[in-house]
Amino acid sequence: MKYAVIGTGAIGGYYGCKLAHSGQEVHFLLHNDYEYVKENGLQVDSCDGSFHLPKVNAYHTTADMPQADAVLVCLKSTRNHLLQDLLAPLLHEQSMVVMIQNGIGVEQDVEKMFPGIQLVAGLAFICSAKTEPGRVNHQCYGHINFGNYSCHNEQRFNQMVAEFNEAGIKAGTVEYHEARWRKAVWNMPFNGMTVALNTQTDILLKNSSTRALIYEQMMEVINTANALGVNGIDKSFADLMIKMTDEMTPYSPSMKLDFDFHRPMEINYLYSRPIAIAHEAGLRMPKLEMLEAELRFIESQR
Amino acid sequence: MKYAVIGTGAIGGYYGCKLAHSGQEVHFLLHNDYEYVKENGLQVDSCDGSFHLPKVNAYHTTADMPQADAVLVCLKSTRNHLLQDLLAPLLHEQSMVVMIQNGIGVEQDVEKMFPGIQLVAGLAFICSAKTEPGRVNHQCYGHINFGNYSCHNEQRFNQMVAEFNEAGIKAGTVEYHEARWRKAVWNMPFNGMTVALNTQTDILLKNSSTRALIYEQMMEVINTANALGVNGIDKSFADLMIKMTDEMTPYSPSMKLDFDFHRPMEINYLYSRPIAIAHEAGLRMPKLEMLEAELRFIESQR
Repeated sequence: MKYAVIGTGAIGGYYGCKLAHSGQEVHFLLHNDYEYVKENGLQVDSCDGSFHLPKVNAYHTTADMPQADAVLVCLKSTRNHLLQDLLAPLLHEQSMVVMIQNGIGVEQDVEKMFPGIQLVAGLAFICSAKTEPGRVNHQCYGHINFGNYSCHNEQRFNQMVAEFNEAGIKAGTVEYHEARWRKAVWNMPFNGMTVALNTQTDILLKNSSTRALIYEQMMEVINTANALGVNGIDKSFADLMIKMTDEMTPYSPSMKLDFDFHRPMEINYLYSRPIAIAHEAGLRMPKLEMLEAELRFIESQR
Repeated sequence: MKYAVIGTGAIGGYYGCKLAHSGQEVHFLLHNDYEYVKENGLQVDSCDGSFHLPKVNAYHTTADMPQADAVLVCLKSTRNHLLQDLLAPLLHEQSMVVMIQNGIGVEQDVEKMFPGIQLVAGLAFICSAKTEPGRVNHQCYGHINFGNYSCHNEQRFNQMVAEFNEAGIKAGTVEYHEARWRKAVWNMPFNGMTVALNTQTDILLKNSSTRALIYEQMMEVINTANALGVNGIDKSFADLMIKMTDEMTPYSPSMKLDFDFHRPMEINYLYSRPIAIAHEAGLRMPKLEMLEAELRFIESQR
């Protein structure tokens, strides 16, 4: 199976390199790092074992890339308006496009660009960062859950999951809606609150007021998901997520890193879209709606 | 009528001096400024005409003060635990204690300290600051609404209102619960939001997200007040408050000033108490509850 990686950063760089390292054919789209990577390849510094790929298939534009069986979209979702142009040259009749992004609504928007496209959600649980050109620093975790949105070639889907596992990536499958909403339970409270209060996960949980607030925000997501008919997200999942975060090393979620490094924040897919979906169903997430407003304000003041 | 002013700052200094200037007998409790004011008196720099009181009745402890007919409590509510000791020497059988403070619950707590005490709420609409020792800078507004909480001497109450007006202060009367909840409609959104987002009233209203949020927070207060049976606070009052704030000069509410000058914030009476009153009645103010949690967090990180 031929892979294309759109966005060779902290996420795309890690998964793409792992696949290439295991022998898969992977084609990487690069932007600022293109010249460097063409010369020097890609380096992964990883808690699970570091490695270097001296020679990679590097491209500066998707027009030069071959059509792919599986396209891993690892851009920030703030750049998804580019996908119409970026994806077009890569797709053949049976291509699977895997949206390894946070938030809710990304598959729906890409489907509008390419009606009938075979889409898969990729939910990555990983701490990694692109520290310098051509170099990914993978600190911990790394497993990924795939949710099949519209891929009717079940065999291809399963083959990809198997190839991720063969590459040393713990990969599983979860029903699509459950996958996206389950991740939102952690993402919606922690991404925004670390920005709004300019802090880290552990400090939010050590303060009894914000600990209770985070829990209530998680319950807003769980209640919405349940009301929307998404299965498998129990109320106890909030307790589990809090406990897991208690045990994590102090952590800045991706939106906090975007904020700190003056990059645009993924407010749309992380907040506005799930809130809009809830509204359409007559549901409210008042504390997360307030957080969205605070983030919009913070973004406007930068 | 003999007046005592507890807390000769931006508020107590202004109202006390206006009363003294009009010929009333006023006794001032001072803390840091005591020596200076005993020597130099008090100065009011006011948009309505400045004046100087060269000789004032200044005290460093209420034990030295005469009993008063009207005690104006103008402390920050964060210091109300001191009132048990501060008020005791000032009270005679018919003393009226006027709580010129923000928030909800202050009269109830003082009533617990002095069962049967005659209490009045004072809601000040004023921009003033104590800029240096013995000097109050009164920038604009200045009117005050009194709400009778437990004063059974109607005549005394009316006399005080009249004497405020004779002193050039626009003073009115409003039903107690309406007075406190009406003020909360403005206070609860703007005090906390200017701290949480480190900004000013005008900037919050210029951003469409926070403008909508402020409106929704106002509606939480109005809906709670109405559900509690408080009369006279119409839903259109939120529109009026927003319009009024649009027309105000850019403004830092008292909690923002407290935050900026590293003083404790009045979270308890401005947020926790009204929220607790709502809870007891089975009501929720989710966005203001979130704001309370954010403020508690911000306070804990200072």
